[in-house]
Amino acid sequence: MTDVKKTLMSGMRPTGELHLGNYLGALENWVKLQNEYNCFFSIVDWHALTTAYKEVEQLDMRIFDMACDWLAAGLDPKQCAIFRQSDIKEIAELHLLFSMIIPLSWLERVPTYKDQLQQLKEKEINTYGFLGYPLLQACDILVCQGEVIPVGEDQVPHIELTREIGRRFNHLYNSEVFKDPIAKLTENKVLPGLDNRKMSKSYQNYIRLTASPDEIMQKVRSMVTDPERIRKDDPGNPEVCSVYAYHKIFNTDQAQEVATACKAGTIGCMQCKKILAEKLTLLIQPIYEKKQELVANPDYVKDVLNDGAKKTRAIALQSLEKVRELMGVR
Amino acid sequence: MTDVKKTLMSGMRPTGELHLGNYLGALENWVKLQNEYNCFFSIVDWHALTTAYKEVEQLDMRIFDMACDWLAAGLDPKQCAIFRQSDIKEIAELHLLFSMIIPLSWLERVPTYKDQLQQLKEKEINTYGFLGYPLLQACDILVCQGEVIPVGEDQVPHIELTREIGRRFNHLYNSEVFKDPIAKLTENKVLPGLDNRKMSKSYQNYIRLTASPDEIMQKVRSMVTDPERIRKDDPGNPEVCSVYAYHKIFNTDQAQEVATACKAGTIGCMQCKKILAEKLTLLIQPIYEKKQELVANPDYVKDVLNDGAKKTRAIALQSLEKVRELMGVR
Ligand code: SF4
Ligand code: SF4
Repeated sequence: MTDVKKTLMSGMRPTGELHLGNYLGALENWVKLQNEYNCFFSIVDWHALTTAYKEVEQLDMRIFDMACDWLAAGLDPKQCAIFRQSDIKEIAELHLLFSMIIPLSWLERVPTYKDQLQQLKEKEINTYGFLGYPLLQACDILVCQGEVIPVGEDQVPHIELTREIGRRFNHLYNSEVFKDPIAKLTENKVLPGLDNRKMSKSYQNYIRLTASPDEIMQKVRSMVTDPERIRKDDPGNPEVCSVYAYHKIFNTDQAQEVATACKAGTIGCMQCKKILAEKLTLLIQPIYEKKQELVANPDYVKDVLNDGAKKTRAIALQSLEKVRELMGVR
Repeated sequence: MTDVKKTLMSGMRPTGELHLGNYLGALENWVKLQNEYNCFFSIVDWHALTTAYKEVEQLDMRIFDMACDWLAAGLDPKQCAIFRQSDIKEIAELHLLFSMIIPLSWLERVPTYKDQLQQLKEKEINTYGFLGYPLLQACDILVCQGEVIPVGEDQVPHIELTREIGRRFNHLYNSEVFKDPIAKLTENKVLPGLDNRKMSKSYQNYIRLTASPDEIMQKVRSMVTDPERIRKDDPGNPEVCSVYAYHKIFNTDQAQEVATACKAGTIGCMQCKKILAEKLTLLIQPIYEKKQELVANPDYVKDVLNDGAKKTRAIALQSLEKVRELMGVR
């Protein structure tokens, strides 16, 4: 039966431990989809170098942490290949081979390219590899014959480019090596930071996906509420409150009730936060516990990554053998 | 004793059988240098794709022919690693890793880049890989720790770039992985085509390095002489004659004598050509005979390429292991 499943491919940069925002943005979705598709999930360490070639410390550790978090959140290595991008050397080879046939203009006009160059100016990323980043992403997808790519809205042009690249190869070498991958839009649930700013590692304004119950309580306590609300029976405005934003996402059943009580001044912020913390604990505690187990068994996690790499390499090699033959190289 | 030898690295695109022009331009020199250096000679099939990704037919055959010609001309596989570039996957990986640290502007300002784009316009080579070509060349050199690179004048900027790339890596990762390769200028002996035009495969105006004695005679007979000279005792002008150009290179001892006789009208063009053909046969016949042996033993030639790849891969892997570790990837 596995053969009739379509292949789903996605990846994340090795940022280390995940937070709730990462979970909502991608991982929650992956866990839901893993039964339906033949899945490949990549920790894209080569991609990390496109914008952070100078920040390579503890990359092994960050990769280990991320793999743990994926597993703790429910990715099942029996169902999906979980691997580290740089273990699949065929991706580098495909990147080189594709580079020969991809017009420079295709990469120069990728919408995110000029934007990011500007935004990350101080990082000196105006490199050959940064320009080639969407090509590398296309290789991730095409090398394992990805058909369905869960992405956010902003990544859709990259999937279109991936299709163009596969088609150009097929056309030039009169072949059908690559399928047309399609973007599967991930529902856009944006979680604000605990301080109502954008959630960011550098602000430390997030809750770890594998936080302990104490840590959750402490983090929720620090959340920014309606600043106009002084006493607990003042009427509040939930729309400006990060706690309410979290209720709407993690406590959907009670969110309306919370809002009403807040506006009426019948609930104190401390109580409101306590309800949220309990709700988050329900979600996070099993992930937290699973993470403790995984951290105590690093060899198991390494085996998962090795098995995932083996499975991915097998399909990658099949793709490469066809490409090499058609391009006349070894 | 081999350890005290410096490492020499060079390559040729797999154009198939070589002609006398190729021999003079590079191969003759390689044969002379092979005792003095620890040599790596690469048939750069990936490079061929940078300008001819649509012309991949018979690449295997062209590579086999070229390997035969190298061996026939005297490269000794016991002394030097002779290999096919695409057998060394570490080069593709290094190319990807280096891409992350190499400013785009370094590649854009390579002097040959804009020129070639213009010259080869109809080939649609304005690709990502064509821009990255000098980086790929740097990888060829750096991956096998090349120190001495025999090149023509026009390639000197590429060797300078190679040095810059190695230094940038060393500097960024506070290491000494790469040495500074230096360009060793090859004496510029330009051989005109048999028809006095530029020697070119498409004009068929050349003598194969492994031509039979008959073929040599026939080719020399077709050479363009002084067009003003009608009868064999007319005074001639050797400076406008391709036969004389060949005498100067392949018959240095007698070239002066030939010129004098030509100007005095005391030698006929047929006789002059016969002398040249004999001289060329002396050079080519042993190469021709060796080639016959090699073609009859394709497995030997394949073994040479495999052994060369094995030797190169061993050193390439050492380089890559250091690079991977310093960049934090696998
Ligand atoms: S009661 Fe809840 S929703 Fe209202 S301001 Fe306080 S924490 Fe925010
Ligand atoms: S005599 Fe020799 S050098 Fe003079 S024109 Fe004839 S072929 Fe050329």
